[in-house]
Amino acid sequence: MTEISAHAAAMAAKVEAFVRQTIVPYERDPRRDHHGAPTDELVMEMRALAREAGVLTPHINADGSHLTQRETAAVLIKSGLSPLGPLACNTMAPDEGNMYLIGHVGSPELKERFLAPLVEGRARSAFFMTEPAEWGGAGSDPSMMKTTCRKDGNQWVINGRKTFITGAQGAMVGIVMAASDEDDTRGGACMFLVDLPDEAIRIDEVPNTIDTSMPGGHATLTIENLRVPATQMLGEPGEGFRYAQVRLSPARLSHCMRWLGGCIRAHEIAVDYACRREAFGKTLIDHEGVGFMLAENRILIQQCELMIDWCAGVLDSGSLGTVESSMAKVSVSEALMKIADNCVQVMGGTGVTERTIVEQMFREIRAFRIYDGPTEVHKWSLAKKIKREWKHAQDAKAG
Amino acid sequence: MTEISAHAAAMAAKVEAFVRQTIVPYERDPRRDHHGAPTDELVMEMRALAREAGVLTPHINADGSHLTQRETAAVLIKSGLSPLGPLACNTMAPDEGNMYLIGHVGSPELKERFLAPLVEGRARSAFFMTEPAEWGGAGSDPSMMKTTCRKDGNQWVINGRKTFITGAQGAMVGIVMAASDEDDTRGGACMFLVDLPDEAIRIDEVPNTIDTSMPGGHATLTIENLRVPATQMLGEPGEGFRYAQVRLSPARLSHCMRWLGGCIRAHEIAVDYACRREAFGKTLIDHEGVGFMLAENRILIQQCELMIDWCAGVLDSGSLGTVESSMAKVSVSEALMKIADNCVQVMGGTGVTERTIVEQMFREIRAFRIYDGPTEVHKWSLAKKIKREWKHAQDAKAG
Amino acid sequence: MTEISAHAAAMAAKVEAFVRQTIVPYERDPRRDHHGAPTDELVMEMRALAREAGVLTPHINADGSHLTQRETAAVLIKSGLSPLGPLACNTMAPDEGNMYLIGHVGSPELKERFLAPLVEGRARSAFFMTEPAEWGGAGSDPSMMKTTCRKDGNQWVINGRKTFITGAQGAMVGIVMAASDEDDTRGGACMFLVDLPDEAIRIDEVPNTIDTSMPGGHATLTIENLRVPATQMLGEPGEGFRYAQVRLSPARLSHCMRWLGGCIRAHEIAVDYACRREAFGKTLIDHEGVGFMLAENRILIQQCELMIDWCAGVLDSGSLGTVESSMAKVSVSEALMKIADNCVQVMGGTGVTERTIVEQMFREIRAFRIYDGPTEVHKWSLAKKIKREWKHAQDAKAG
Amino acid sequence: MTEISAHAAAMAAKVEAFVRQTIVPYERDPRRDHHGAPTDELVMEMRALAREAGVLTPHINADGSHLTQRETAAVLIKSGLSPLGPLACNTMAPDEGNMYLIGHVGSPELKERFLAPLVEGRARSAFFMTEPAEWGGAGSDPSMMKTTCRKDGNQWVINGRKTFITGAQGAMVGIVMAASDEDDTRGGACMFLVDLPDEAIRIDEVPNTIDTSMPGGHATLTIENLRVPATQMLGEPGEGFRYAQVRLSPARLSHCMRWLGGCIRAHEIAVDYACRREAFGKTLIDHEGVGFMLAENRILIQQCELMIDWCAGVLDSGSLGTVESSMAKVSVSEALMKIADNCVQVMGGTGVTERTIVEQMFREIRAFRIYDGPTEVHKWSLAKKIKREWKHAQDAKAG
Repeated sequence: MTEISAHAAAMAAKVEAFVRQTIVPYERDPRRDHHGAPTDELVMEMRALAREAGVLTPHINADGSHLTQRETAAVLIKSGLSPLGPLACNTMAPDEGNMYLIGHVGSPELKERFLAPLVEGRARSAFFMTEPAEWGGAGSDPSMMKTTCRKDGNQWVINGRKTFITGAQGAMVGIVMAASDEDDTRGGACMFLVDLPDEAIRIDEVPNTIDTSMPGGHATLTIENLRVPATQMLGEPGEGFRYAQVRLSPARLSHCMRWLGGCIRAHEIAVDYACRREAFGKTLIDHEGVGFMLAENRILIQQCELMIDWCAGVLDSGSLGTVESSMAKVSVSEALMKIADNCVQVMGGTGVTERTIVEQMFREIRAFRIYDGPTEVHKWSLAKKIKREWKHAQDAKAG
Repeated sequence: MTEISAHAAAMAAKVEAFVRQTIVPYERDPRRDHHGAPTDELVMEMRALAREAGVLTPHINADGSHLTQRETAAVLIKSGLSPLGPLACNTMAPDEGNMYLIGHVGSPELKERFLAPLVEGRARSAFFMTEPAEWGGAGSDPSMMKTTCRKDGNQWVINGRKTFITGAQGAMVGIVMAASDEDDTRGGACMFLVDLPDEAIRIDEVPNTIDTSMPGGHATLTIENLRVPATQMLGEPGEGFRYAQVRLSPARLSHCMRWLGGCIRAHEIAVDYACRREAFGKTLIDHEGVGFMLAENRILIQQCELMIDWCAGVLDSGSLGTVESSMAKVSVSEALMKIADNCVQVMGGTGVTERTIVEQMFREIRAFRIYDGPTEVHKWSLAKKIKREWKHAQDAKAG
Repeated sequence: MTEISAHAAAMAAKVEAFVRQTIVPYERDPRRDHHGAPTDELVMEMRALAREAGVLTPHINADGSHLTQRETAAVLIKSGLSPLGPLACNTMAPDEGNMYLIGHVGSPELKERFLAPLVEGRARSAFFMTEPAEWGGAGSDPSMMKTTCRKDGNQWVINGRKTFITGAQGAMVGIVMAASDEDDTRGGACMFLVDLPDEAIRIDEVPNTIDTSMPGGHATLTIENLRVPATQMLGEPGEGFRYAQVRLSPARLSHCMRWLGGCIRAHEIAVDYACRREAFGKTLIDHEGVGFMLAENRILIQQCELMIDWCAGVLDSGSLGTVESSMAKVSVSEALMKIADNCVQVMGGTGVTERTIVEQMFREIRAFRIYDGPTEVHKWSLAKKIKREWKHAQDAKAG
Repeated sequence: MTEISAHAAAMAAKVEAFVRQTIVPYERDPRRDHHGAPTDELVMEMRALAREAGVLTPHINADGSHLTQRETAAVLIKSGLSPLGPLACNTMAPDEGNMYLIGHVGSPELKERFLAPLVEGRARSAFFMTEPAEWGGAGSDPSMMKTTCRKDGNQWVINGRKTFITGAQGAMVGIVMAASDEDDTRGGACMFLVDLPDEAIRIDEVPNTIDTSMPGGHATLTIENLRVPATQMLGEPGEGFRYAQVRLSPARLSHCMRWLGGCIRAHEIAVDYACRREAFGKTLIDHEGVGFMLAENRILIQQCELMIDWCAGVLDSGSLGTVESSMAKVSVSEALMKIADNCVQVMGGTGVTERTIVEQMFREIRAFRIYDGPTEVHKWSLAKKIKREWKHAQDAKAG
C-alpha cells in the first residue's frame, strides 16, 4: 500500500513468522482462566519466546517513541494472525493504547516507572474509564463521568465505580480517569497512574462474556478512597478528556489491525478446509455457494486493509482522526463479522467447534462490534458531522 | 393463527407459566458441565418440577401418540422461552425427535421398553446418524453411510464411526443407524434401539462448541462390534433411510419452534433494557437506531410464527414436508440470527455478557444455522426442485 | 392457506387464466403515455375483455359489498401476474381502495352516482390526500393537512394543494380530503366526492417517476375555490381522518397482493430463463450462484403469502389492522425488492431491458418501498407501539 | 490518497467546476432520444463548452498518451458528478476504453485516422465484442466468440452477430472483434477499426433499458459480409483476446470512477434534502433512521475511493489487474447500489421522481451491477483463483 520503513517491514515479517511458527501451536494449550481467557502464566511463557525472537512490543520503545501508525498496522495485523499473538507480542488491548498514551503524555519519571515494565512485557495494565449505565455513569459518553477526584494535600482521593475495565483483574498498572472535584479544573477530568492491585479498588464482578481473548476479562469494580500521590497524575489536571481523545483513535484502530489479522487467518483456515473436503460430488470450494463466500471474504479483507491504511495515514498526518477512526471502526468491524460468519458457515459443523480459531474469531468480532463504540454510536456522530458540514457550506455560500 | 384444540392451548399456557416462573430463575444456576451445558443433575431437578406442574413431555404420550404439529408448535415455542425450558419439559432435541420416531415406527414392546422412560423424562437419548467427513462418511448426505450392520444369528453386529452425536454422552437410549451389509437389504439402512452406555461405543471426543444448551454436547465416537439383538431393530430391515425421512421434518421444525421461543424472550429482554436505559439524552428505545432494530425483530418474529405454522400444517396434512421444512428452516434460522444479533446490539456491553440469555441465544442460533442442514444445502436442494418443476411443466405443455 | 369460499377460489382461477392468456400478450403493446404508463384507450380495451370474461372488478359489487380480505388476496394476487392485470380487472390502486371506501362510507345515492361507474370499470378515480412537504402540508403525517374546506350555504369551498395524487390526470371521480375550517368540526377533516375534471383543480405537474404502471401518473395540483354540493360529502363532517384509517389498511394490503403477483411472475420468467440458458459450461440454474437466488425467491414468496394472509385475517376479524398492515407492508415490500433484484441479476443483460416485465417489476417495487409509508415510518410507529406495550405491562405489574 | 501530478490535480478541479457550474443545469434539458438517453445534438453542444473550458478529453491525448490511472481516477470521478458530465468531457464509456485501447495498440496511422476524432470529441465509438447467448455466442465468456473474420485478398470479411453494443447507434468509429477463421491464427481473435455506419452492419434492435445515460443505447445487430481493409486491423492478427484484456481493467475501473462521482452527487442531494425538510417534528437528518443512512453512505463512498485508488495503483504498476479490477468492480458496484438506494429512500416520494438525478443514479447503478461482468461472474473467477493459490501453496510446501 504505502511506503513503510524497511525496519517496520522487516519487523512485520519477523512477527508473522513468529506467530505462525511459535504461537499458533499454543492455540491448543489448555491453560485458560475460568472466563476462557489465557492465564497470565501462559502469557508470560509466550512473551519469553517473543523476547528471544526480538518481536516483543515490536512497535513501541521504552521512552514512548513508536512506529508510525501505518507501520504499526503492518506489524499489528501480523501479530493478530493468532488470537494469542497480540498477547505474546505485547500488542494487545488495552496495553497497547495505554503504552501509547503514557508515551505521549507521561513525564520521563512516570515513563520510567510505569511505561518501562509494560514495554518490557513484564506487566499488564488497565484503563479505568467507562462507568455503569445503571449508576448513571459514563458509558459511551465520557462527559457523564461520575467517578471523582479531590485533592487532599499531596494526594488525590478518588471515589466511584467503573465497568467493562478490560484486564483490571491481574493488571499491575492502572490508568484511572476521574472527573475533577476541584474549583480550578471542574468540568474537566484527571488521569492517574496507579500501582495495582490496590485495596481501594474492589473488583465486584468479572462477568463471563462472548469473547475470551483478554486476560482478566472485563471487570466491574468500586473505587473507594483510592489515594494517589499528586506526582502520579498523568499530564496536567483537567486535561483528562483531551488525553482520552489522544488515546482514542490509535487504540480503536489497533483493534481493527489485530482483528483483521485474526480474520485473515480464519479465512486461510476456511480456504484450506474448503479445498480439502468433498461434499455432494465435488470439492467444497467448487460449490459456488462456498466459493462465493470465500471470494467475498477476499474482497472484504482488501477493503479492511485499505480502510486501516487510510485512517492510519490520517493519524500519521497529525490529525486526531476521530471521524476517520469512527468510519474505519464501523467499516472494518462489520466486514470482519461477515468474514468470520462466512468462515464458520463454510466449515459447517467443524466451524462451530473449538477445533480451530474460526469459532473464537466469530465470538471475538461479535464483541468488537460493541466495544470502542457500537456501530450505531459512530453513525450517530457521523450524521451529526454531515449536518454540521452542510451548515458550514450554507453559511459559506450565504457569506 | 389456526385452530388448535382447547387442551393444547391450555397446555401451551401452562408451559409458558411454568417456564417463566419456575425455570427462568434456574438460568443463573451454576451447574454446568465443562462444555457449558447444564448437568444431568440440574436437568433431573427441573424435570421433577415439570412433572409436578403437569408439563413434562407435554406433547407426546407413552404410547407414542402426540399432539398435531400445529399444537406442538404452540407448546414448544413456549417451552423455549428459556434455553432451560426444553430440558425441563422434555421437549428438547434430540429426544423430542427420537420419541416421535419410536412412537411412529416402534413395536409395542419396543415402545414400552425404550419410549416409556423417555416420555417419563427419566432418560436421555441420542440419534447416531451423521459420520465424520474426513472418514468419507455421511455428513449432510445420509446416502454415504459407512457404518455397517451385519447379521450374526439372532444378533446384528455394527461397526463404524459417528460424529456430532448430540447428547450421546450420558444418554441411556440410542438409535443407531447403519448401512445394511446383507444381500436382501443392501443399499438400505437399518435402525436399532440400544441401551447406553455400551462398551462397544467409545466416545473419542466431545469438542467444545459455540452452543452450550445440550447436555452431553456433540460427541465423536467409534462403534466396534456393537452387538444388538434382532428384536431391537426399529421397524423393518432396509427401511432406515425412509424412517430418517419420517423423523426429519418434525425434528427440524421443532428446532424452529424452540429457538423462536428463545428469541421471543431475548427480544423481551432487549425491549425491557431499551425502555429503561438512557443514553445521549433519551431513553434508548426512543433512539430510532435502537427502536428500528426492535421493530424489525417484531416483524421477523411474526414471519417465523407464520412459517412454522404453515409448515406444521403441511405436516399435519400427512405430507413428509421435506421441501417445506427446508424452506422453514432457512427462513426461521436466518431470521432468528438477525433477531438475536439485534438484541445483543441493543444491549451494548451487557449484550455480550452472560448476565442475560441474550448472549447465549446469539451463540445457539449461530450453531442452529449449521445443524439440521446449513442454509446452503437447503437452497441447493430447493434449486434442484425448482428445476424439476420447470421440466415437468415443460413436459406437460409438450405432452 | 385458509378457507376461502368456492366462489372466490373459482374467481381467482378465472382471473389467473384471463391474465395469463389474454393480458400478458398486451405487455408488448406500445400504447403508453409520455410517462410510460398505459393509455386509457389501452385500459378500456382490456377492460372490455375482462367484462366479457367475467373478471372485471372481481371482488367488489356495485352496492359496495365485497369479498373478505383473504378472498380478495386470492384474487388480487392473480390479477397482479401482469402489471397490466390490475388495470384490466379493475383491481388497481387507487381505484380499488377508493371503491372500498365509498362502499363502506357512502350513502346509497352517492354509491349509485360515484361507485357504480367505478365498479363497472367505466371510470378511473383519485384520492386527494397527500400534500407537498415544501408547502408544509401533510406528507406521511395526515394530521398536518393544510387544504381546507369551508361551508358556504349548500356548498363547501375547498382550497389547497396536493401532491403525488395517483391517477388524478384522466380520473372522472375524485375523493378530496380537506381539514375543516368550521367551528363544530375544527381539528377534523371532511371528504368529498367530486366529478372530474373540474376547472378549480389545476394539475401543475406530473413528474416522470421510476414506476410506470399507473395511468395518470402521480400529479401535483392546486385546488382553488373548488365548490362541492353538501350532498356530495362522503360520510359525516369531521370524520375524514377516521375514514382515511378505514381505507388505509386494506388499500395498503392490496398493494402487497398485486405486487406479490407481479413478482411471482417475474420469478417464473427468471426460472424459465435460468433453465434454458447455458453459461460457463452448464445450465444457468445449475450454477449455485443462480440457483440459490431462485431458491431464496421461493422462500420469500412463501413468506409474503403468509404475511398477506395473516394481515388479511386480522382485517376480516374486524380490526383496523393498522399495526399489522404496517408490518405486512414492510416485510412484503422489502422481500419483493429482493425477489425483483434477484430476477434482474439472474437474467443478466436481458434483465435490465424491457424485453420482459422483470425490469419493470424492479422499478415498480422500488417505488412501492416509498409509497403508502416508507419502511422507516412504519418501523418508527412500530417502535412507538413496542414502548407503549412495555409501559402497559409495567403498569399492569405495578397495579 | 496518493500522489498525483499537479497537472492532474488542477485538471480534476477544473473538471469539477465545469461539471457543477456548466453541465448540471443541462440535467433538466429535455433533449432525449426515445430510449431516454441524451441526443447527440445535446452531447455536441456540451462538448463545445467543454472544449472552451479546457476540459474535453482531459486524460487522453491525440497520440494515445494519457494520465496514470490514479490521475485518471481523480479526473473521472469529478466528470461523473453529473450523469451528463462524462458525455460533456468525453470521459464516457465505451469511448474512454476505446481511446485507451487504440492508444495502446494502434499504429500511428490508425491513431491519426481513428483516435484523433475521438479524442477531439467529434465522434462517438462502439466496441463490438459481446454476442447473443441465444445464438450460442460470447456473452460473459469471450472465448465462445462465434463472429468470424476470414481473409480475402487485402481485405477481411466479417460475419456474425453482436448484442449489447453500447453506443453503436450513432457511432462513427467501431472496433469489431471476431474469431479468426485463418489457419495460422485459429483459436485467436482479431480486432478491426471500421468507419460507421456501414451497410453490412444492421442494427436489429435497441431495446429500452433501465439505464438511460448512454447515447445510442445498447444495440443488437447483425454483421453480414463486412469488408475491412487489412490495414485497418488493430494490432496483430490472433491477438484480439490479449488486446481485450488490455482494455478490460482500465475500462472496468473507469465505470467505477464515473459512477462514484454520480453517487457522491446523489448523496449531496440527499443530504441537502434531509437538512432542509421537516417530518414528525424534526429535521429529517435528525431522525436517526435518516441520519444513519447518510452516515453509511459516507463510509461507503470512502471505501469506494480507496478500492478505486488501490486498483488504479495496481494498473499503474504495469499489471493487467484482472483480479484486482474484478474485486474493485464487485465492491464498488454493490456499494454504489446501497448508496443510491439510501438516497432514494431518504428523499421519499421525491426520490422516485426525475426531479433530481437520484432516481437516474439508482437505475444506472442497477445496470452497472450487470455489465462489465455481473457480481457472480467475478466471484466465480475469484473463487477459482483462491483455489489455484491454495494449490500452489501446497505444491510449494511439498516441493
